[in-house]
Amino acid sequence: MPAEESEMTNAAASHLFPFDLPHRAGRLLGRLGAEHVRVHAITNAAAQNLTANLLLAAGAVPSLTTAPDEVPAFVASADAVLVNLGTLDTERRAAIPWAIAAARSGKKPWVLDPVFVHASPPRLALARLCLAGCPAILRCNAAEFAALAGAASEPEAVGAFAREHGTVVALTGAVDLVTDGERTLSIANGHPLMARVTAMGCAATALAAAFAALEDDAFIAAAASLLAVGIAGERAAERGKGPGTFPPAFLDALHALDSDALSTQARIS
Amino acid sequence: MPAEESEMTNAAASHLFPFDLPHRAGRLLGRLGAEHVRVHAITNAAAQNLTANLLLAAGAVPSLTTAPDEVPAFVASADAVLVNLGTLDTERRAAIPWAIAAARSGKKPWVLDPVFVHASPPRLALARLCLAGCPAILRCNAAEFAALAGAASEPEAVGAFAREHGTVVALTGAVDLVTDGERTLSIANGHPLMARVTAMGCAATALAAAFAALEDDAFIAAAASLLAVGIAGERAAERGKGPGTFPPAFLDALHALDSDALSTQARIS
Amino acid sequence: MPAEESEMTNAAASHLFPFDLPHRAGRLLGRLGAEHVRVHAITNAAAQNLTANLLLAAGAVPSLTTAPDEVPAFVASADAVLVNLGTLDTERRAAIPWAIAAARSGKKPWVLDPVFVHASPPRLALARLCLAGCPAILRCNAAEFAALAGAASEPEAVGAFAREHGTVVALTGAVDLVTDGERTLSIANGHPLMARVTAMGCAATALAAAFAALEDDAFIAAAASLLAVGIAGERAAERGKGPGTFPPAFLDALHALDSDALSTQARIS
Repeated sequence: MPAEESEMTNAAASHLFPFDLPHRAGRLLGRLGAEHVRVHAITNAAAQNLTANLLLAAGAVPSLTTAPDEVPAFVASADAVLVNLGTLDTERRAAIPWAIAAARSGKKPWVLDPVFVHASPPRLALARLCLAGCPAILRCNAAEFAALAGAASEPEAVGAFAREHGTVVALTGAVDLVTDGERTLSIANGHPLMARVTAMGCAATALAAAFAALEDDAFIAAAASLLAVGIAGERAAERGKGPGTFPPAFLDALHALDSDALSTQARIS
Repeated sequence: MPAEESEMTNAAASHLFPFDLPHRAGRLLGRLGAEHVRVHAITNAAAQNLTANLLLAAGAVPSLTTAPDEVPAFVASADAVLVNLGTLDTERRAAIPWAIAAARSGKKPWVLDPVFVHASPPRLALARLCLAGCPAILRCNAAEFAALAGAASEPEAVGAFAREHGTVVALTGAVDLVTDGERTLSIANGHPLMARVTAMGCAATALAAAFAALEDDAFIAAAASLLAVGIAGERAAERGKGPGTFPPAFLDALHALDSDALSTQARIS
Repeated sequence: MPAEESEMTNAAASHLFPFDLPHRAGRLLGRLGAEHVRVHAITNAAAQNLTANLLLAAGAVPSLTTAPDEVPAFVASADAVLVNLGTLDTERRAAIPWAIAAARSGKKPWVLDPVFVHASPPRLALARLCLAGCPAILRCNAAEFAALAGAASEPEAVGAFAREHGTVVALTGAVDLVTDGERTLSIANGHPLMARVTAMGCAATALAAAFAALEDDAFIAAAASLLAVGIAGERAAERGKGPGTFPPAFLDALHALDSDALSTQARIS
């Protein structure tokens, strides 16, 4: 099939997808590099390297400092902020309120990733305080959601939680669920190897923050990031031979991702 | 050779190995994933990512927080604990006694890796206090052993040290030595490239902790982990082209390792 | 072409390069492994793993602790020190003055990498204090230099800054500039993918520290390290398929680098 015809076909197909998501994800990826979007990420020690490399592979510019006295200046020159609660040491615990305050003060979107919040009571308490700071997006898995919400992650409960907190919930699992309490999407992309690599979810949340810097509709930003990460994961699994070669292949695939690939492989409902 | 015949041959061969080690290592690897063994690892900053990925590749579930107020809860929901003394900052120094106390209180095995203890007097003092907390396994190299024991790492001295401290010593080097003071094994598997990658030894110790969660005999757990890591290293070196591509290949190889490969390649005496 | 003839040709060609740089870089690489050069690196959280692996791939031995009470002992047994100001938390902030003091007391070269100093006023203030501790080499990019020097990174300004502070400035970018205020070199090696991977520059600075342990002329040590890193980057880009597979390929290429490759590919003026 000639390239032009293929593009037309995929463009047509894309409009069949809810919210035209594949094309919007592709345009967001294209803009990340062109506009040098900067994301300040307070994230856990196992995720810092992969998070920075995911942002760079996608075209964005990361910064990672967790020092409380430096975070406000870094957030001031960033376009979006990621707050990930993993390896929550004294420094991160002190820095997070400043990061949230600086994001709110600068009217910049910030994204919350309440890693392992079900395993640590003090972390759960901090996560609840963070939620009061109005994250644009909350990215979590079912166990983390259940701890935060005090309810199982049924779609209705997730929607109600999103409405109550005025946030978009991106609940990841074998099938991802994204909802702002009014609109809901399911994304079935991804690959089981993604669960055999540390910090894949944490790093993916950074892409949601980068997209939220460009896209005012946080529901679209969250869904587009999960779609891009899921499809890059599928492409990496085609090349990868196991969990060790998967992350390098994933970053290569994300770097090469375009609207055409997103439209062809998207499994959204 | 047909598969069944090959299996029989290897099964037969395996019983020639001391303690039937290759088969026991293979069964431990199989159980790690089936039983979702959880390991809480307090480890150094250069090792955190590789340690988590090694555990995931082997089928276990890692957590890594070093925050003193969170460590007890994480250890309470884990099956084994790793204490690695690298990059021993204030947070880790404060967290380690809580991790050991929580492991002992929960009757969970814990493993000590006294990284670079010969290079730092305050770290050596802390390592000696840790030893009093009865680690199931002490994994170290010759220089670290010499600093801890005040004696060269001759087999007799290592055995005496293991008896005195009621621990299994896994002394790694070109040939690994494992002893509980009564039984002793030498494992000659491994590859020189493993010494050209940071944190390979640290990450390997995490597998010893995971195995100790499943195997009450810490001598077998320690030896099985060194055997699995050594053979995965040899298989990775066949594919790897240098120290950069080695770690991804190593994780792939560990993920794919089974009793058959372990029996075929084991060099134990 | 027979090997001997090739060597002669390249040796002849090499003498055409300023300061015979490719051969000197090749000899320094050869000596790193033979002499087990040790580098203590206080570096940022995203760079620690890659920095250690770069040093190991090049034949040196890294240590990474940031604990203030341990740094003096580690520096005392190291041959050179790297101080990188990224992720400048309380621990690193307290450790850095001890690292510099120990390096000066032991007459060991130390190298300063003032990461993101333009984005954080407290970090800029600390960097200026560090500069007063006489680093052998200052490695930075144009934005970092501008913040430190209060001047754009024109060659004359860079030279004047080097003279004023008695240091070698290694200013990296599409073309690298190395100057001690008297001598100046431009190195055009490298590949755009190096800017799409986190901590490549940080890790490269560690090689400058390792070379400075062997080569009293810090101008040569700095230039040789940038040449080796740039050429390893070009070789990696030939094999790499994107930013994810680039770092493993880079470490493989650095590990395999020799005088012959350095002479063939050097673009110095």
